[in-house]
Amino acid sequence: MSPADIQLDENGKLKHFLSIEGLKKPILQAILDNAKSFISMGERRIKKAPFLRGKTVVNLFFENSTRTRTTFEIAAKRLSADVINLNPRTSSSTKGESLLDTVNNLEAMSTDMFVVRHGDAGTANMIAHHVPQHVRIINAGDGQHEHPTQAMLDMFTIQRYKPQMHNLRVAIVGDILHSRVARSQIHALSTLGVAEIRVIAPKTLLPVAVETLGVRVFHDMDEGLKDVDVIIMLRVQRERMDGLFLPSEQEYFNLYGLTEKRLKQAAPDAVVMHPGPINRGLEIDSAVADCKQSVILAQVTNGIAVRMSIMAMVMGGGQG
Amino acid sequence: MSPADIQLDENGKLKHFLSIEGLKKPILQAILDNAKSFISMGERRIKKAPFLRGKTVVNLFFENSTRTRTTFEIAAKRLSADVINLNPRTSSSTKGESLLDTVNNLEAMSTDMFVVRHGDAGTANMIAHHVPQHVRIINAGDGQHEHPTQAMLDMFTIQRYKPQMHNLRVAIVGDILHSRVARSQIHALSTLGVAEIRVIAPKTLLPVAVETLGVRVFHDMDEGLKDVDVIIMLRVQRERMDGLFLPSEQEYFNLYGLTEKRLKQAAPDAVVMHPGPINRGLEIDSAVADCKQSVILAQVTNGIAVRMSIMAMVMGGGQG
Amino acid sequence: MSPADIQLDENGKLKHFLSIEGLKKPILQAILDNAKSFISMGERRIKKAPFLRGKTVVNLFFENSTRTRTTFEIAAKRLSADVINLNPRTSSSTKGESLLDTVNNLEAMSTDMFVVRHGDAGTANMIAHHVPQHVRIINAGDGQHEHPTQAMLDMFTIQRYKPQMHNLRVAIVGDILHSRVARSQIHALSTLGVAEIRVIAPKTLLPVAVETLGVRVFHDMDEGLKDVDVIIMLRVQRERMDGLFLPSEQEYFNLYGLTEKRLKQAAPDAVVMHPGPINRGLEIDSAVADCKQSVILAQVTNGIAVRMSIMAMVMGGGQG
Repeated sequence: MSPADIQLDENGKLKHFLSIEGLKKPILQAILDNAKSFISMGERRIKKAPFLRGKTVVNLFFENSTRTRTTFEIAAKRLSADVINLNPRTSSSTKGESLLDTVNNLEAMSTDMFVVRHGDAGTANMIAHHVPQHVRIINAGDGQHEHPTQAMLDMFTIQRYKPQMHNLRVAIVGDILHSRVARSQIHALSTLGVAEIRVIAPKTLLPVAVETLGVRVFHDMDEGLKDVDVIIMLRVQRERMDGLFLPSEQEYFNLYGLTEKRLKQAAPDAVVMHPGPINRGLEIDSAVADCKQSVILAQVTNGIAVRMSIMAMVMGGGQG
Repeated sequence: MSPADIQLDENGKLKHFLSIEGLKKPILQAILDNAKSFISMGERRIKKAPFLRGKTVVNLFFENSTRTRTTFEIAAKRLSADVINLNPRTSSSTKGESLLDTVNNLEAMSTDMFVVRHGDAGTANMIAHHVPQHVRIINAGDGQHEHPTQAMLDMFTIQRYKPQMHNLRVAIVGDILHSRVARSQIHALSTLGVAEIRVIAPKTLLPVAVETLGVRVFHDMDEGLKDVDVIIMLRVQRERMDGLFLPSEQEYFNLYGLTEKRLKQAAPDAVVMHPGPINRGLEIDSAVADCKQSVILAQVTNGIAVRMSIMAMVMGGGQG
Repeated sequence: MSPADIQLDENGKLKHFLSIEGLKKPILQAILDNAKSFISMGERRIKKAPFLRGKTVVNLFFENSTRTRTTFEIAAKRLSADVINLNPRTSSSTKGESLLDTVNNLEAMSTDMFVVRHGDAGTANMIAHHVPQHVRIINAGDGQHEHPTQAMLDMFTIQRYKPQMHNLRVAIVGDILHSRVARSQIHALSTLGVAEIRVIAPKTLLPVAVETLGVRVFHDMDEGLKDVDVIIMLRVQRERMDGLFLPSEQEYFNLYGLTEKRLKQAAPDAVVMHPGPINRGLEIDSAVADCKQSVILAQVTNGIAVRMSIMAMVMGGGQG
């Protein structure tokens, strides 16, 4: 059972959006191209498109994330959908059959799309296998597996600032091991064909055999940032600061925090990215977060457009 | 003060929907007939009707029930209403005058309909007596009194599978004593004129003098299920498993759980219903919940259509 | 940096609505005049105007207030906006830069208006200084500073019942010291030019040098109510009943509770107002709250219209 199979319909069109892994370059590029029209809509007086009119979108967030949920809610409403927000308690009872009972019930209400976030890897995929033909599933983060819409908004952002992707050196810095964002980014960068993907992290925060993903590994940040065109900082989860994975906050910042000085190692026109919310002074210096090379807020703006693009596409809109 | 009086306007049209008791067969049948058009809407590409456009519906849930609230929210949005979800804390201060102050305030905001769930019997009725002429009240469950929209979606489901209602034997199984659903179902089945209504439960879970409602009482499940056409399982509240009302979970399942073997006592084409959420392995075996005779998910689908029907009707739509 | 500067655009039109202080009479009167059209809309079958269609309004409530948030939500939806409700936890981390990071992120989602409630005075103002040109800010209460939409709905209510404002004597009764509502009301009454503004309170509940605001101070309620045309009762915060600011509840009611007997001190056609929710038997007798002179529920109705008026105006609608 390959994820690719279930994400596409019999004509090869996008049907669910579950993982970057398994999707080919033309699909990723179509999402990015389609998103451009939604970026211009965000600047119009009336930000409303009819693509999801009369559809019911359920934001099914087993993990709480007001921020990500809000971007999907805004995207869906701008596409004229009716939106239902649900935060089922992730108790032990919301597992296995009981999760599917929840899904069955929501699907029986003639809903059209589930945006699913869950603490367990593979949940969105499992739901996609379970629902009937007409229901669409979008993965808004599943455990430490993937967060594919985040990766696509990152790719969109990179293309806007650095259109010649095949020439780019991109560095991802931080807790690669636990990051679904990093995993999706690596797959996307690789599929879209950048020149070089680097990961910069202490050994404790790298997956085993990470090199097999086609990345170059750096433990020293100055070395790793050398001449890169794009720096993607990951958010540090403070709860990992327990000595097992991470040293103290100060020590982490000393070794892997992005400072103005360190930024000088990168190409002079390098852009700085972060999925947010940022921990100022932990993984990134405040001055860098707000500097001209930072495109962190542009990522947020692009996130709405990219999510609208994906939602419209899986519903049958915007695919040539 | 008869509930019938307040539920109908001077022309005998449905105005509030508070209880099945007190409503005559033509009204119940009109709700069911009207719901058919909304069932077909659920299958259309654009699930949107204009009946409540420019109206404000307040989901006023003093008791938490994401599931039921969601069905009303979806129904109202598909009717083009603006929906406000409120979960006032059911503290001691939300009683008596203070509850009416809440209602007064919401009504002063020019809202049009309240969908009310409350732990105290009679709350929706009291509110209906209190609000001005143009405001509509729908009871989404009041204490152990009634849950009339649930009963109507059950009737709709029965009619879809068993159109000849006057020939039917229907069994309701479980905690009749504490169930507002059962109370509404018995009234509805009785008004619509089924051949026989049975209740199957241990003595501790039956209201005193339940026979006066026109039901046949069975304490033995195999006996009670004999040749019935419809089996309605009730949800067991685990908090009743304290020895006072119910024996252990295992013992309950042994005596009153619906298994494949027990199902064979019923007519071969009997349908199995449950208001959800189901407790698999407590009141119903997983295999039965998912078997071909189970119409539990159809109930959910029908619930949206029936609630749309009722909401449209009390607002003046769909009544010939 | 005067608040007046930032609330108006270069043509003197209302752009943000942050405080009554700093706004001139023509602006306040324009809000009130504009609100009249929305009052009549509240009585129409279809309560929907297109002024905010395709706009995204964020209710950003750092302090919880379901009631006030609901009025803004209803107002925005009737203006056809998409509405996002957010209740960021007011932890220590939601201060300073981190608050601005939240705002930056929401603004980057191409949102158009923030309705802000926050426990710290000046928050809405700070945000208004921070956001880009096209974003509008409405203050829904900032600490003990101002609650300007509440004051405007109060002015609207007064004008409806007492059109000759320049002849009016208005008394505000209760905890003036801690009340953002009172502060906004005093500025509004003063700008609109009523004949006399009185405040009635114990010394412990009056700001230092309150007379400099142009009010007459009374500690004795019977004296203070003598011949007034409008009585505005403030809500007593029970948590102030700690002996420091307030005596016991009974003693407070004896001294400053509005009873039928005390109401007789006022002009025979005086109206009684209260921002709600009322504490029956604490600051106001139940009989007075529900008497013919009480316009408390009219205030709620007017609140929707006035908030629609302000929202439409800051977005460029309704300013001649």
